[in-house]
Amino acid sequence: MNIQYAPHSSPEEEIAEMRARTFETRRATVPAMEEHLYLPKKVLDHGFVRVIDYMGDDGAIVQSARVSYGKGTKAVQNDEGLIRYLMRHWHSTPFEMCEIKLHVKLPVFVARQWIRHRTANVNEYSARYSILDREFYIPAPEQLAAQSTVNNQGRGELLEGEEAQRVLDLLRADAGRAYDHYEAMLSQDGQKGLARELARMNLPANIYTQWYWKVDLHNLFHFLRLRADAHAQYEIRAYAEAICDIVKDWVPFAFAAFEDYRLGGAQLSAKGLDCLRRMLAGEEVTQETSGMSKGEWREFVGVIDT
Amino acid sequence: MNIQYAPHSSPEEEIAEMRARTFETRRATVPAMEEHLYLPKKVLDHGFVRVIDYMGDDGAIVQSARVSYGKGTKAVQNDEGLIRYLMRHWHSTPFEMCEIKLHVKLPVFVARQWIRHRTANVNEYSARYSILDREFYIPAPEQLAAQSTVNNQGRGELLEGEEAQRVLDLLRADAGRAYDHYEAMLSQDGQKGLARELARMNLPANIYTQWYWKVDLHNLFHFLRLRADAHAQYEIRAYAEAICDIVKDWVPFAFAAFEDYRLGGAQLSAKGLDCLRRMLAGEEVTQETSGMSKGEWREFVGVIDT
Amino acid sequence: MNIQYAPHSSPEEEIAEMRARTFETRRATVPAMEEHLYLPKKVLDHGFVRVIDYMGDDGAIVQSARVSYGKGTKAVQNDEGLIRYLMRHWHSTPFEMCEIKLHVKLPVFVARQWIRHRTANVNEYSARYSILDREFYIPAPEQLAAQSTVNNQGRGELLEGEEAQRVLDLLRADAGRAYDHYEAMLSQDGQKGLARELARMNLPANIYTQWYWKVDLHNLFHFLRLRADAHAQYEIRAYAEAICDIVKDWVPFAFAAFEDYRLGGAQLSAKGLDCLRRMLAGEEVTQETSGMSKGEWREFVGVIDT
Amino acid sequence: MNIQYAPHSSPEEEIAEMRARTFETRRATVPAMEEHLYLPKKVLDHGFVRVIDYMGDDGAIVQSARVSYGKGTKAVQNDEGLIRYLMRHWHSTPFEMCEIKLHVKLPVFVARQWIRHRTANVNEYSARYSILDREFYIPAPEQLAAQSTVNNQGRGELLEGEEAQRVLDLLRADAGRAYDHYEAMLSQDGQKGLARELARMNLPANIYTQWYWKVDLHNLFHFLRLRADAHAQYEIRAYAEAICDIVKDWVPFAFAAFEDYRLGGAQLSAKGLDCLRRMLAGEEVTQETSGMSKGEWREFVGVIDT
Repeated sequence: MNIQYAPHSSPEEEIAEMRARTFETRRATVPAMEEHLYLPKKVLDHGFVRVIDYMGDDGAIVQSARVSYGKGTKAVQNDEGLIRYLMRHWHSTPFEMCEIKLHVKLPVFVARQWIRHRTANVNEYSARYSILDREFYIPAPEQLAAQSTVNNQGRGELLEGEEAQRVLDLLRADAGRAYDHYEAMLSQDGQKGLARELARMNLPANIYTQWYWKVDLHNLFHFLRLRADAHAQYEIRAYAEAICDIVKDWVPFAFAAFEDYRLGGAQLSAKGLDCLRRMLAGEEVTQETSGMSKGEWREFVGVIDT
Repeated sequence: MNIQYAPHSSPEEEIAEMRARTFETRRATVPAMEEHLYLPKKVLDHGFVRVIDYMGDDGAIVQSARVSYGKGTKAVQNDEGLIRYLMRHWHSTPFEMCEIKLHVKLPVFVARQWIRHRTANVNEYSARYSILDREFYIPAPEQLAAQSTVNNQGRGELLEGEEAQRVLDLLRADAGRAYDHYEAMLSQDGQKGLARELARMNLPANIYTQWYWKVDLHNLFHFLRLRADAHAQYEIRAYAEAICDIVKDWVPFAFAAFEDYRLGGAQLSAKGLDCLRRMLAGEEVTQETSGMSKGEWREFVGVIDT
Repeated sequence: MNIQYAPHSSPEEEIAEMRARTFETRRATVPAMEEHLYLPKKVLDHGFVRVIDYMGDDGAIVQSARVSYGKGTKAVQNDEGLIRYLMRHWHSTPFEMCEIKLHVKLPVFVARQWIRHRTANVNEYSARYSILDREFYIPAPEQLAAQSTVNNQGRGELLEGEEAQRVLDLLRADAGRAYDHYEAMLSQDGQKGLARELARMNLPANIYTQWYWKVDLHNLFHFLRLRADAHAQYEIRAYAEAICDIVKDWVPFAFAAFEDYRLGGAQLSAKGLDCLRRMLAGEEVTQETSGMSKGEWREFVGVIDT
Repeated sequence: MNIQYAPHSSPEEEIAEMRARTFETRRATVPAMEEHLYLPKKVLDHGFVRVIDYMGDDGAIVQSARVSYGKGTKAVQNDEGLIRYLMRHWHSTPFEMCEIKLHVKLPVFVARQWIRHRTANVNEYSARYSILDREFYIPAPEQLAAQSTVNNQGRGELLEGEEAQRVLDLLRADAGRAYDHYEAMLSQDGQKGLARELARMNLPANIYTQWYWKVDLHNLFHFLRLRADAHAQYEIRAYAEAICDIVKDWVPFAFAAFEDYRLGGAQLSAKGLDCLRRMLAGEEVTQETSGMSKGEWREFVGVIDT
């Protein structure tokens, strides 16, 4: 772990120190999140996610919804019911009223996928100013998969035996060598030393970087829906799942609604709904009579079959 | 004041209750902000701004900057120096790491200007669901100004005597009548009662609405630079100034840097810099020899003159 | 109609002039959109939508998708299939590669709903600089509905007879009087004349404003999904439907996919999917055995029933 | 050059074909941009920028400003004057009414800086779906600089002789070897072949990627102000400068205003303005009497000195 801190203290000491300090506040506070604060939650071989700060709780969602809908929300009896109602009807602004700030250490190729979610605040470790650490993601054997044969994007069978070993050897050797040369180019020992902003270009995409990432709950749910999904690349999914565990503790009602209506739900097309109604009426529907393409039909069956 | 609350308690009781509760937290906490929390700060005749929540402090800006710039920031000795450096060099991401949530009550025509700042989260009281209150902004006599004669946008001399009185009478009478008719159309007494979403269209732009507004510090500074400026309409400026007072307590170093580099500073054009250099070299520069249009020259002189 | 133009020409002349000019271009061009260009499409009593410019077509979506997915997209045989695939799998960036610019004239209360969609560029007529026109939205009799009794948001039965007449009389009289007083306050005839930025506060929310609105296709679809929906307020839905007619001509494949997968589709929850599977397996499922609340169950039945 | 196209045609043929097609349009059209369309403008050793589409021109900025400011803009006599006025007073929405779509081929480490500008649409070549090409950025000798000794970020003196040669040899050898191993891991010849999404992690940050990037003119100016600046890393500046050349042809009035008020201008702080006024009044001001830190004073002198 390589978090940047004040001099003369290790990351562990720094974290212990931050966790030892407590303050009185009138703000919405979630005891379970206080337990998470500052502690790195390990992800992949050298990565982590840790909570640096949070704003709001389930109550803050309800509170802002009641500002917008005023007396109009009387019908919904309780907070959980209101939160479920808001999620079901795609109300986004009440969920935007909660915010979380995470410190994440992650491989560069994961960072490149992650940053495509633009509605967030990001402050990344700068390799123009600073020197990156010698830490690389090397997949565990159970993640070393072949290209999928049915899907242009994604993984198929596991590599085995010699092939797996060859891959791991190449990844390790290339990473190590690239880093040795990075250091050699930077070195000012008997030479001028290449600028950091140039030397970094030699480093591979499995090197670890880190950033602060701050996002509101609505946009975080959007991120999680895409990245905690089975179709997401395993390496980013590992981060999304670690974040799910945190969000579950932070806003339990909202997370349960998210699981029911988004993560565990499915979008059906107009054609899909039509087939469904015919099937419920007793008709036998096949791909040929469905009006769907083969790909759509396969996905449709995947949704309605157990 | 008309904040929406749990039944059976007045807004004042509700606020007192929320302020009476305190929690232990490990999060960055600003004692001066704890004093602000939940208390409405009066703006205009019926409006207010109150802090509902905040995330981060001056230290959080520094902390995230040190993640990005790592050892590269060693040269800047202290937190205030680093914050000034970041502001001077237009680094925006460290300031995005702080967030504030405000509850604002404001006239609709102010809300319409405000919402043009898109990088924020907003949850507004809904006049589709709920009934608006009978509260209207009526300018104080010292704000009742004529159209500027030099500027198509903005105010000139104060209205006086009978004209001022006539304006106030018209504003009050029209607002009152519009609201009476709003209620008459909504009423279900002996009639069906018009839908709220339709009846509201009769209400004038000086009626008060309210919203939760959540924004990061970088975007808040952008808002304040434009809206606390002398060219902003007085009514939104009143809100911007109330928010400045809060931000000053929240992140004193960042606010001081903002005042020095943004609010109190000025952008000079290439032509302006050229004139300045010639003037410092002893040349007498006039509009004719400046290369600027009359409007630009007038503004340039306004910047460099005391 | 009150579009701002060069002096000495009426809006109709101006539009005729702009439509008479043609240029040669190498850009993606859609003949059906060329027919739409500049022509106002009437909405409500005084409003309109007109296309000012557009970028891209169905081909531009495919083209950018093929940049991202390269050889990976070979499996999908044709453009329409690829567009349907992208929509079904929530790929948003290819749809962002198309852009449209509209000139819209709309009542202020509609503008206030519309602006909640933040991911767009907006340039609104400024009532600080300029004087608004005497044009107000007065609902047609078939839109004059009572508050819904089952839904806190929305309309129920139509108002009839005297009640309807009373509402129309009030709306017309108040709007006319407010505008008379707006003019009286602005007048510089024998008085200074109130600043425009103040006088406008007397105007009701059914006055018309206008703006340029520019948005990419992905965010436009999001807007249309919410605003062309049966639950949207009729007045904004009227605009959404007018825009649907335009988009259908602009990107016919993308619009057809949008209709199938979004507008005509439905999101089912995890509980909903579970009930569905049980029903398809022959089980009789009721609200009591569904695990859903009454509200959810009613909506679920609404989706699967014809 | 490796643009993705329809089978059976080279990139050059494809471009020639697209350039040979012309259409009639009523949209705002800029002849100089028609010349640019589709043609790659070379940047760095293997990169390029090419215009895929554009919306609007200088006239479109004026047109939308006149919608917002209506009769209020009469005072400004002509289009250029109005555009300069809008730029000077930080009006952003009229500039947002122009949009450009570029196809860019660029090294990954440049892409990582670029993507920090979030207000744009991006569609990047996916290394999950597709195989990257064997093309790497190798700096020209005149760009091979040492770390700056005065600035933690940035370059100092040029490397020379053997050191320079050593760096180039390392960069070339590591890139080549990394790519050989990428291919070896992907190969399905006698083995399963590693998934693309995993194999790519071995590739260094100087490999080229490509994307479609679509942005409005206001946000493009913001990007150019930061990235065409002397403090930007040379490699991204090279792209920014190529884009400047295009924008100059696209919206010549707006670009000239941008050069005068942004690129060539400077922001002075409140302290800086105070010093300036004292200097213009004849006082000799030094760092000690300026109230500025050493760093600020050095930058201030840099602005006002020739």
